[in-house]
Amino acid sequence: MTPFRISFCCTNTAPAPWLAGLHTALPQADIAVWQPGALPADYAVVWAPPQQFFDEQTQLKGIFNIGAGVDALLKLKLPPSAAVVRLDDAGMAVQMAEYVCQAVIRHLRELDRYADDIRAGRWTFRKPRQRTDFPVGVMGLGVLGSRVAQALASFEFPVLGWSRTAKALPGVASFFGPAQLPDFLRQSRILVNLLPLTPHTANILNHQNMSQLQPGGYVINVARGAHLVDVDLLALLDSGHLSGATLDVFRTEPLPADHPFWQHPKITITPHTSARTLRDDSIAQIAQKMAALQRGETVAGVVDVARGY
Amino acid sequence: MTPFRISFCCTNTAPAPWLAGLHTALPQADIAVWQPGALPADYAVVWAPPQQFFDEQTQLKGIFNIGAGVDALLKLKLPPSAAVVRLDDAGMAVQMAEYVCQAVIRHLRELDRYADDIRAGRWTFRKPRQRTDFPVGVMGLGVLGSRVAQALASFEFPVLGWSRTAKALPGVASFFGPAQLPDFLRQSRILVNLLPLTPHTANILNHQNMSQLQPGGYVINVARGAHLVDVDLLALLDSGHLSGATLDVFRTEPLPADHPFWQHPKITITPHTSARTLRDDSIAQIAQKMAALQRGETVAGVVDVARGY
Repeated sequence: MTPFRISFCCTNTAPAPWLAGLHTALPQADIAVWQPGALPADYAVVWAPPQQFFDEQTQLKGIFNIGAGVDALLKLKLPPSAAVVRLDDAGMAVQMAEYVCQAVIRHLRELDRYADDIRAGRWTFRKPRQRTDFPVGVMGLGVLGSRVAQALASFEFPVLGWSRTAKALPGVASFFGPAQLPDFLRQSRILVNLLPLTPHTANILNHQNMSQLQPGGYVINVARGAHLVDVDLLALLDSGHLSGATLDVFRTEPLPADHPFWQHPKITITPHTSARTLRDDSIAQIAQKMAALQRGETVAGVVDVARGY
Repeated sequence: MTPFRISFCCTNTAPAPWLAGLHTALPQADIAVWQPGALPADYAVVWAPPQQFFDEQTQLKGIFNIGAGVDALLKLKLPPSAAVVRLDDAGMAVQMAEYVCQAVIRHLRELDRYADDIRAGRWTFRKPRQRTDFPVGVMGLGVLGSRVAQALASFEFPVLGWSRTAKALPGVASFFGPAQLPDFLRQSRILVNLLPLTPHTANILNHQNMSQLQPGGYVINVARGAHLVDVDLLALLDSGHLSGATLDVFRTEPLPADHPFWQHPKITITPHTSARTLRDDSIAQIAQKMAALQRGETVAGVVDVARGY
């Protein structure tokens, strides 16, 4: 394979193990951490890069984002010739399935209430709740959403999926497009958001939409903080229409110290940890795709920049 | 179908909905709550019945236990002619899969530590742990154990199973019999107990066996309290060889108020709620099996009284 150059430009990421892993997987490549004025590279591996990086590296053929969401990246001015490639699984789908399933199970089985009882020294039975009363609606049926929906179906939950275009997944009732959103919401009691963040999906978890969930609704947001209108969630929890929420992502991260989500009794939060980038899996995937692009082949996970994901 | 008589003898169980459900499913049957001196019945539906029930009802053809474990029932002197039939799923397997998966996921993903951080107002990342470092050993591969093992495998955990006889389950490494128990334990880091309680399995979660788990081992007991030697678990948690436990069952239930499990920082407990008998599912299964026995057919879930399950 022809030698080529990779520039590594990842904020808050220790470069050494990435460079070592990429070097082992792609011995023919020259790999370096980007610095201003660096030589022009063929490919970039990026996480939250500065605009200056793209202003200088205008010749890039491929930009590999070491995460699934590219909303922040697409706010920058990118070289128009470069393919933007996101991680399309790299160990994140199973993590997302784990995280969402445990959140749904804890809600159905009232495990937080049992934990409160145990802390108080109380041995109390609760009437078992039927999972048929807890249909789960999954918004976004990409690589992560599909895996989540099918994991939930394996636990015999009624599962509904809503996406931009119709998707056929076993055990998942398909809804698509803006016209079918109200029906999807009205038939869901637990709502899981796994949509990409685009101008069309920002603020989609708002009062109008979340109030259409079945009474006692529960919201799980594992996509982006900007999908959720924070005050609308708080109002629907206060009114009792929603019974709770599990949130892994926030408009500002880390979540500001004075934000009401921190100690809200009906909200469970985690610090954006639902699906972490796993280095070894990611390096293997990026190396395989870079090699394919070098051979002139097409690869999965190329972002439609106009669409936003 | 020939008319027949059912006697209902269930401690701590409201009889009305059971009688109504059985009557609807088996309109040809005469169903009554047992009282001393009652007419002889063909079938019994029981939960923790007194010995007097069987002393009087010696003609029974079938005894239906409304639970999966029959260890308590088999301590009584039963009519030798009666088939003892346990619930072989009735909605319990999926509940058990839910309960065990959420316990395993919470442990792998350190969700309790994240919850502690959030309570303390800390936004802290932890290095993701690899699920390949957390092989899960499932003891007991009956209806419940098989479902649990396969649910864990679907989350890509390495899964090992140990049972009395060899079992072939996709994605589950099979170990069987006493001779293979040490190998099974040494290759497991998380141990899930779903064995029936028999003289052979009582106290199987003892110091000798649990100390063979990989360092940082984690024990999940969802079978019977008498499987676990409580002081051995406490000693192995104190020594640090085990990192924690999730327990749903106890030697004495409710767990006595002064038991150290209540507030132990490394032990999560729930009040025997991992898989609850679901009335409608159970009635449907019992009715179907009673009708089959009446027609002279064989049914699943008949207990081998000598074996103990």
